[in-house]
Amino acid sequence: MEQQDEQVGGLSHHGSSQDLGSPPISSFEPGESSQQEDGTVMRRSESYLPVPGEDKNLDGDFNGKTRNDESMPMKTLYASDGSLLHLPLGPYFSDGQRRVDYVLTYGIQKPSAIRRQSSKLSDNGYFHRLWRSLSSRSSRAPLQLKEDPEVAATEQQANYHEDDKRFKREEFEQNLQEMGLELEKDEGGKIAGIGFLKIHAPWAVLCREAEIMKLKMPTKQVYEVKQGSNLVEKIRLFIHKVTDPLHPKVGPKRPEDVKSLSLPFSKEKQHLFDLSDRDKFFDSKTRSSIVYEVLKRIRWTRPNYSLGITSLLANGVYTSAYPLHDGDIDGVTAEPNDRKLLFEEWASYSVFYKYQPIGLIRKYFGEKVGLYFAWLGVYTQMLIPAAIVGVIVFLYGCATVDDNIPSMEICDPRNNITMCPLCDSVCSYWKLETACGTARASHLFDNPATVFFSIFMALWAVLFMEHWKRRQMRLNYVWDLTDYGMEEEDHNRAEYELRVAEKTMRQDQGAAKIFITFVIAFGVILYRISIKTALHLSTYPAARSNIRATVKTTAAIINVIVIIILDEIYASIARWLTTLEVPKTDKSFEERLIFKTFILKFVNAFTPIVYLAFFRGRLVGRPGKYLYVVGSYRMEECAHAGCLMELCIQLCITMLGKQLIQNNLFEIGIPKLKKLLRKRKSELTSKQEEELHKTLKRYEKDHVLGPFVGINPEYMEMIIQFGMVTLFVASFPLAPLFALLNNIIEIRLDAKKFVLELRRPIASKVKDIGIWYNLLRGLSKVAVIVNAFVIAFTSDFVPRLVYQYTYSPDGTMHGFVNHTLSYFNVSDFQNGTEPNPPNFNVKVCRYKDYREPPWSNTSYELSKEFWAILAVRLAFVIVFQNVVMLMSDFVDWLIPDIPKDISFQIHKEKLLMLDHFMKEEGRRRDNHNHDGYTSPSSGIASPHSRPTFHTRAGW
Amino acid sequence: MEQQDEQVGGLSHHGSSQDLGSPPISSFEPGESSQQEDGTVMRRSESYLPVPGEDKNLDGDFNGKTRNDESMPMKTLYASDGSLLHLPLGPYFSDGQRRVDYVLTYGIQKPSAIRRQSSKLSDNGYFHRLWRSLSSRSSRAPLQLKEDPEVAATEQQANYHEDDKRFKREEFEQNLQEMGLELEKDEGGKIAGIGFLKIHAPWAVLCREAEIMKLKMPTKQVYEVKQGSNLVEKIRLFIHKVTDPLHPKVGPKRPEDVKSLSLPFSKEKQHLFDLSDRDKFFDSKTRSSIVYEVLKRIRWTRPNYSLGITSLLANGVYTSAYPLHDGDIDGVTAEPNDRKLLFEEWASYSVFYKYQPIGLIRKYFGEKVGLYFAWLGVYTQMLIPAAIVGVIVFLYGCATVDDNIPSMEICDPRNNITMCPLCDSVCSYWKLETACGTARASHLFDNPATVFFSIFMALWAVLFMEHWKRRQMRLNYVWDLTDYGMEEEDHNRAEYELRVAEKTMRQDQGAAKIFITFVIAFGVILYRISIKTALHLSTYPAARSNIRATVKTTAAIINVIVIIILDEIYASIARWLTTLEVPKTDKSFEERLIFKTFILKFVNAFTPIVYLAFFRGRLVGRPGKYLYVVGSYRMEECAHAGCLMELCIQLCITMLGKQLIQNNLFEIGIPKLKKLLRKRKSELTSKQEEELHKTLKRYEKDHVLGPFVGINPEYMEMIIQFGMVTLFVASFPLAPLFALLNNIIEIRLDAKKFVLELRRPIASKVKDIGIWYNLLRGLSKVAVIVNAFVIAFTSDFVPRLVYQYTYSPDGTMHGFVNHTLSYFNVSDFQNGTEPNPPNFNVKVCRYKDYREPPWSNTSYELSKEFWAILAVRLAFVIVFQNVVMLMSDFVDWLIPDIPKDISFQIHKEKLLMLDHFMKEEGRRRDNHNHDGYTSPSSGIASPHSRPTFHTRAGW
Repeated sequence: MEQQDEQVGGLSHHGSSQDLGSPPISSFEPGESSQQEDGTVMRRSESYLPVPGEDKNLDGDFNGKTRNDESMPMKTLYASDGSLLHLPLGPYFSDGQRRVDYVLTYGIQKPSAIRRQSSKLSDNGYFHRLWRSLSSRSSRAPLQLKEDPEVAATEQQANYHEDDKRFKREEFEQNLQEMGLELEKDEGGKIAGIGFLKIHAPWAVLCREAEIMKLKMPTKQVYEVKQGSNLVEKIRLFIHKVTDPLHPKVGPKRPEDVKSLSLPFSKEKQHLFDLSDRDKFFDSKTRSSIVYEVLKRIRWTRPNYSLGITSLLANGVYTSAYPLHDGDIDGVTAEPNDRKLLFEEWASYSVFYKYQPIGLIRKYFGEKVGLYFAWLGVYTQMLIPAAIVGVIVFLYGCATVDDNIPSMEICDPRNNITMCPLCDSVCSYWKLETACGTARASHLFDNPATVFFSIFMALWAVLFMEHWKRRQMRLNYVWDLTDYGMEEEDHNRAEYELRVAEKTMRQDQGAAKIFITFVIAFGVILYRISIKTALHLSTYPAARSNIRATVKTTAAIINVIVIIILDEIYASIARWLTTLEVPKTDKSFEERLIFKTFILKFVNAFTPIVYLAFFRGRLVGRPGKYLYVVGSYRMEECAHAGCLMELCIQLCITMLGKQLIQNNLFEIGIPKLKKLLRKRKSELTSKQEEELHKTLKRYEKDHVLGPFVGINPEYMEMIIQFGMVTLFVASFPLAPLFALLNNIIEIRLDAKKFVLELRRPIASKVKDIGIWYNLLRGLSKVAVIVNAFVIAFTSDFVPRLVYQYTYSPDGTMHGFVNHTLSYFNVSDFQNGTEPNPPNFNVKVCRYKDYREPPWSNTSYELSKEFWAILAVRLAFVIVFQNVVMLMSDFVDWLIPDIPKDISFQIHKEKLLMLDHFMKEEGRRRDNHNHDGYTSPSSGIASPHSRPTFHTRAGW
Repeated sequence: MEQQDEQVGGLSHHGSSQDLGSPPISSFEPGESSQQEDGTVMRRSESYLPVPGEDKNLDGDFNGKTRNDESMPMKTLYASDGSLLHLPLGPYFSDGQRRVDYVLTYGIQKPSAIRRQSSKLSDNGYFHRLWRSLSSRSSRAPLQLKEDPEVAATEQQANYHEDDKRFKREEFEQNLQEMGLELEKDEGGKIAGIGFLKIHAPWAVLCREAEIMKLKMPTKQVYEVKQGSNLVEKIRLFIHKVTDPLHPKVGPKRPEDVKSLSLPFSKEKQHLFDLSDRDKFFDSKTRSSIVYEVLKRIRWTRPNYSLGITSLLANGVYTSAYPLHDGDIDGVTAEPNDRKLLFEEWASYSVFYKYQPIGLIRKYFGEKVGLYFAWLGVYTQMLIPAAIVGVIVFLYGCATVDDNIPSMEICDPRNNITMCPLCDSVCSYWKLETACGTARASHLFDNPATVFFSIFMALWAVLFMEHWKRRQMRLNYVWDLTDYGMEEEDHNRAEYELRVAEKTMRQDQGAAKIFITFVIAFGVILYRISIKTALHLSTYPAARSNIRATVKTTAAIINVIVIIILDEIYASIARWLTTLEVPKTDKSFEERLIFKTFILKFVNAFTPIVYLAFFRGRLVGRPGKYLYVVGSYRMEECAHAGCLMELCIQLCITMLGKQLIQNNLFEIGIPKLKKLLRKRKSELTSKQEEELHKTLKRYEKDHVLGPFVGINPEYMEMIIQFGMVTLFVASFPLAPLFALLNNIIEIRLDAKKFVLELRRPIASKVKDIGIWYNLLRGLSKVAVIVNAFVIAFTSDFVPRLVYQYTYSPDGTMHGFVNHTLSYFNVSDFQNGTEPNPPNFNVKVCRYKDYREPPWSNTSYELSKEFWAILAVRLAFVIVFQNVVMLMSDFVDWLIPDIPKDISFQIHKEKLLMLDHFMKEEGRRRDNHNHDGYTSPSSGIASPHSRPTFHTRAGW
C-alpha cells in the first residue's frame, strides 16, 4: 500500500507499451542495470536468454501430434497474434501466451543506492509492519501458522547480505530452470522496491509432476451415477426441484449425474485423458500447486539446507510467494471467470439463503478451503433444528412460568418469609418476595424441558459429527480423494524451524511476553480483591451501601479487559511453547500449535462461565458463620434462585458480545476505516486511484492484497462457538439460535475475505479437517459432563425431583420453597456478624441451605436431606454421563461412516477400472499381434475362447 | 476320513507310475469315462487339450529374454528332467513342473451308479457331518463365518441336480481357462467320491493380476534402515545380543537392517524387479491369493449371479477350495520348507519362551493371521508387567493382613458382638467373630493397593492399545502396507446371502433354536426360584438347616450348565439375527456377526460376576423386615465382609475353569480322543496308516485336514479374557497372571493348529485387526466404569476412608467395625420373623447397615451416615471415571501412533521413490536421444545445466 502511494508520481507502464518494442527475450540481465527514464531499474540476465535449438520439440511427447503453440519461442507468437494487446494485464508472461502459474517477489536496490534505499525501505518497513499488524488483527492473526514472510523479511536489516540474497536467488532460479520451469522477471513495475519473478510450468513439467504427485485426473470415460432405486431417485428429483432457488447458479444444473472415471495421471496412459485442450486440462489451481510442489522441493546452494521455498522465505531471500487470482471481479478485464462467479453466487450477502457452490470453491481454492466451507455449511445447516428446538424449549419455559409452583410461592406475599442477611454485619434481613423477579426469570432456563434439551443437544452433537463424516466421505468420492492415502506433506521443517527459533531467542520476545502476561493477570486479580476488601472494610456508610454496585461494575469491566488482553497474549504463549518443542514437520507443528492455542483460548473464554456455574455461591458458609477465603475476602453469593440466571446472562453477553465485536468491529469496521484513512491520506481522487488500479498487472494487483495465513483462525472461532452451543446448553437454550444467526453472516464474510481481500491460497489437498475433528469430538465429550453437572448442581432440577417424590406430602411441588430453607436463630449470631443496625423484631430468619434447625442436637450441621440430595445429584451425573455417552456411541455405531450409495459407487468405479484395465490388456495384445510388441497376457486360452473373452469382459 | 477308510482296499497310485506312461496332456476328458482296473473313474476333456501353436511365446513379455522353462508344453520338459520321479507327491501338476496354486474339490458319481453312490455318499455325509461338527467344536466353530461349504454341500441331497452342477463346473472351468489359468483334474485319487481340480497360474496371469491388485513387490533397490543415532543403535544391538536366545532361528539374523524399496508391480516396470528366479518371485502364498482373486471374480452361467467361487461353494457345485501347504513336516518328502521351519521354531511347546517369527508367519499365512499372532504376542508381553504388579498387590495384601484393624476387631473375641439373624425365622443369632476368616481373606483383595492397581490397569489397557497401534504401524511399514488404502474386499454377498437366508427359512432352524433357548433359560430361572422357595417353606427342620448348602450347590451346578448351554445357543442367535439383517458385503456381515456374538458371549460370561458384584446382598432389607422380591423369594445375602470375596472366588473359578476346559478338554483332549477312536475303528495298524499317508498326494493330504474357518474364534476367546483381566481387576489382582500363563500355552496351541491340523488359509491382506480393536477400546472404557463401581460399592474402601477422615475420634480405623453396624431391638421383630427357636438372652443385636438406632425418632430409617457415604461413593465413581478417562486420553494423545523411526523411514522411502522416478525420467530421455522416442521432460533447461541435473538428483 505504502509503496504504491509513493510510486504514484512516476507511473511506468512496463510490459504493454515498452516491451512491445524490446527485444524478444523474456527477462532481463542482472549484470548490467540500465536506468530507465522513470528511475526504475531493469536487469537483464544472460542466463535467461533462451538458447537456440533448445526450444525445438520442447513438448513433443504426444505421440507425434506435436503442438507447438504453447512453448514455442514467443517472438513468432507475439507478432502473429493481434488480439494480445490487452492481455498483459492478465495472468500471462509478456508474450501474452504463457500463463503465470506462480509469483515470487523480492526486495530490490541499486547497489550504488543501497544506503538511501535502505533507509527509505526501513521507513516503508515500519508502515508496512503497522499495516500488516492491523490487517492481521482483522483476520485473527495470532493463529497464522507461518511467520508472515513479509514481516520477517522486512524486519531484517535490508542493507546487510543483499548480495548474498541475490546470489541465492540466482542459484535458486537456475535450479528452477533445470527442473524445466520457465521464468520471467519484472523489476520495473508500478510497485517500487519489489521485483517479481513470474513462473510458468510448461506442459512437460506439468505432466512429470502430475505423475510424481499421483494426481488423479478425469479420463474420457464417464459413467452414470445412479442415486438408488427409482422411487428414491424421484424423491431426490422432486426435492431438487423444490429447492432449486436455493442452489447457486454455477455450472451445469445437475453435475452429479455423470462422473468421469479418474486415474492417476501417467504419461504412458495419456491417450485415456481428454487432452483436446491442453491449456485447460490442468486448471489454474492445479498448475500453481504443481509449481509450488517443485518450489518446495528444489535445492539451493548448500546441500544440507535443502527443501526449498520455505527456507528462502524465512530468510528473506524472497519476500512473498503466491499464485494468481483468475481475474478481476469488475473493471475492464472482467471477463467471465471463476473468481467473478464465486463473487456473484457465493461471496455476497444477497445470496445468504443459498447453498454454497462447494465444487467451485474447491476448484478455485483447493480441497482444504473447500472442506472448511463445506464443514461450516453442514454446521450451519445442523444448527437450524437445534435453534428451533431451543426456541421451543425457551417458549415452553415462558408459557409455564405462571404455573410454576416454586416461583408462585416465592412471589406470594402471604408467605412473608424473612430471610437472613447475605453477609456479615453490613447486610440486613430481607423478604423472600423481593426475589420474585429472578425466581420467575430462572424458570425460563430451569425447567424439565432443559434437561430434555441438553440430552437432545448431546445427541445432536454426535449426529452433527456423523453427518459431517458422511458428507466428507461424499466429497472425498466426488473429489476423487478416496484412495488418497497418507501422502501428507510431512516435509521436514527442521531447518526453517531452527531459524525461527534462533530469531525468537535473539529477541527474547516470547519469554518477555509471557512474563508480562503473568504480571498483568496477577495484577488484575490483586486489584479485584483489594478493591473489594477496601470497600468492605470501609466504615463510611455511603461507600458501604455502594459496595455491591461498585464491585460488580468494576468487575464486569475488568473481566472484559482481561479477556481481550489474555486472548492476544495466549496466542503468543502457544506459539512460544510450540517453538520450544521444535516439532519435526510442518504438520505436527501446525497440530501442536492449534491444540495449544485452542486450550488457552478455550480456558480464556470459559473461565468466567465455569466460575459462575460451579463455584460462585458454593461454600459460602451459613449466616453467622460465612466463610472467608483469603483474610476477609468472601466467596461471592448468587441471587436467591440460584446462579443459573446469572450464568445465562453471562453466556448471552459473551456470545452476542464476542460475535458482534469480532464480526462487526474487527472484520467489517476496521477494514472500512482503513480504506477511508488511506483514501484521505493519498491525495488522489477515487477516480484516479481506480484508473491506477486498472493499469496494474494481475500479479501487482494480487501483491497489494493481504497474504493468505491459513484457515485455522476461522476454524478456531467456530470451534469456540461450538463449545458455547454445546457446553452450557442446559443453561441457555437460545445459544444455537444466536450461533445460527452469526454463522449465516460468517459464511459470506469469510467468503468475501477469501475472494476479495486475500491473495489466492496455494491449493492444498486434504481428505479431512484433521485435528479440528478431534477437537470437536473432545468438546462434545466434555459437553456431556458439563451439562450433567449444570443440571445436577447449578439448576434446582434434582432438589425439585427429590422433594416431589420423597418429601412432598401430596406429591406436588407445594411447600418446596419452605423445604429448601433452613432456620436460623438470630441469637446465634457470633460477635460482629449480626446485622448493623439490628432488627429486634426478628427472632428466627431463613436461609437457603439444607441444615439442621437450631433446636436440633447438631444444630446448623448439614442435614440428612442435604446428603440425600447430594447423593441423588451425583447419581444423576453418573447416569446422565454414561447414558448419553452410550447413546452417542450407539448412534455413532449405527450410522455408517460411508453413505451406502457412495460405497456402492466406489465399488462400481473399482469394477469399471478393472474392466478398463482388462480392455487395455486386450488392446495391447492386439497391438502386439500387429507390430510384434511383447504380449503381456497369454495363458493357455484356446483360440475359440478369445473373442468371448473380449465381449464378456464387461462384467 | 471316512472316505479314506473305505478306499483302503483299492489303492491307486495315480500320477506317479501310471502318468509317466500316459500321453502328455495335462487333464482328462469328461466326455468318455474309462473304467480303470481299481474301479475309479477318470474323465478326459477335449477342451483341456492344449492347442498346438497356442503354446509358443506364452511368456514372452520380458524384453526378449524369453524364459520358456515354466509354461512350455510339458512333454518336452517331462521327458528331459530325470529328477521328477518323486515329485508327484509334491504340490505340482502331473508334469512335476507346474505348481498347484489352488485346489477345488467336488463330489463325483458315475451317471450309471448314481443311486448306489448317492446312498453311500449320504452315509458318508452323515459321518462326515458328525466329524465336522466335532472338529468344529474343537475350533470353537460357532463363530465360523462362512457356512462350512462342505457341510452345506453334503447336506444337499446328492442325487438331485448333479448334472446341473457338472454343467456349472464346466462353464466355470472354461471361464477360468479364458482368464489364463491352467487346470488339471484328478478324479481317481485315493479319496473316493471326491474329484480334485488343480489350478496353476502361469507367469502371465500372475503378472496381470499382481498389477490389477496393485501388489507391492520388492525391487532390486535396497536401502539401509538406520535405527536412529549411534547410541540408540548401540543399545539396540546390545539388547539384541542379550535376548539372542529368545529369537527364533529363521532366516538371516538381522533382516531389519536393509529393506527393499517396494513398488506396485507393473509390467512396464519389470526391469526394476529382481526376476532372476521367476518361480520364487511370487511366493506360494501370493500365488494362491492371486488365483483366489481370479476365482472370486470369475463369472459363470447367468450374468446376474456373478462373482465367483463363493456362490459355487454355497451351492455345492464345489465342495471345498483351498491352497496347498508348502510341504510335510516329517516323512520322506520333508525337505526344508517354511511349514517345517514354522513347526520347529514356532508351533512347539519347547520354544514357548521365544519371540514369534512374525515375518515368517505372515509370509506363510498372510497378513491377517500374522497380525493375529503379532497381536497375541504383544498382549502376552504386556501381561508380564501387569502380572508382576498384580502379584505384588496380592502380596501386599497378604503382608498387611495382620495389621488390618477392621479384621482384627472382627476376630477379637473380647468384642463379643451378637449379630442379628440373616433371614426370617429359620436363621438365628450369630457371633461376629465367626466371620473372622472371611474378613481376613477379604483384606487380600480389598485394600488401598487394589485401588492403585485398578487405576494402573486402566492405564495399562490404554498403553497396551497404544503399543499395539505402534507395533501395527511398524508391521505395516515392514510389510509394505503403509499406503494400502481402502482396497477392502467388499464384494457383494447379496446372492450368497440370499441362498443362506432361504435355506435358513426353509429349515426354520434359527427361529426354533431361539425359541428353545428362551424356554431353557426361563426354565432354569424358574427351577432356581422354586427349589429355593420349596426348601424355604418346608417346615421339616433337617431340610431347613440344609437350605443354604443345598441351594448353593444346586445353584453352582446349574450356573455351569446354563453358561455352557447358552454359550452354544447364543452363537446361533447371533448368526440368525445377522442373517435377518442381510448385510450387503462380506465384510459388514463379518463385523456384525462378530459384534453380536461378542455381546452375547460377553453377557453370558459376565452375568454371574456382575450379579455378584453389584446386586447380591443389596436391597436385602433389615432384620425383622427383609425384602422379598417375588412372593417369598428373597435377594441372596453375602457373607459379612462384603461380596468381594465371593466375587473374587467366582472370577478365579471362571478364569481357571474356562481356560482349563477350553484349552485342555476341547483343544487338546478331544482331538486326541478322536484320533484314538479313529485308529481303533480302522483296522489298519498305525504303520500301515503311515504308509498310506506317505503315498497321498499333497492336495489329498491337505483335503484330510480340517477347513480353515477364520481366526475370529481365537480373537473372541482372547477378547473375553481381556475383559476378565481388565473389567474386575479391582477385585482380583491375580487375573493378569492367570491370563499370562494361559496365553503362553495358547500361542503354541493355536500355532500347532494352524500349522498341523488345518488346511492352509487363503492369505488375506489387512492393515489392522479391524473390529477387534474397537471391541478392545470399548472394553477398556467399560472397564473404567466397572472398576469405579467395584471399588465404590463392592469394596469397603469408601466407608473406611469416610470413617477415618470424618467419624473416627483419633484418625485411625479403630472403631470402624462398630461404626458400620446398626442396632436392632429384638422386640421389634414382626410376627413370624423372629428366630425360631428364640434366644431370650439377646435384647439388642447388630446388623451391617447404616440405619438409625431403635431409640431414634425415625428408628431403622437410613441414617445420615448412609447418605453421606453414598454421596462419597458416587463422587468417587465420577472422579475415578473422569480422571482415568482423561489420563487415558492424555496417554493416547501423548504417544504418537506412528513410531518416530518408522515415520522417518516412510519419509525416506518416499524420497527414494521420487529419486528413482527422476532417474527413470532421465533414463527414458536418454533413450529418446538415442532412438527417437518422445521426450517427456524438456523445459528451457540450457545444455550446461543438464549434467548437473543428473548428478544432483540424489537429494
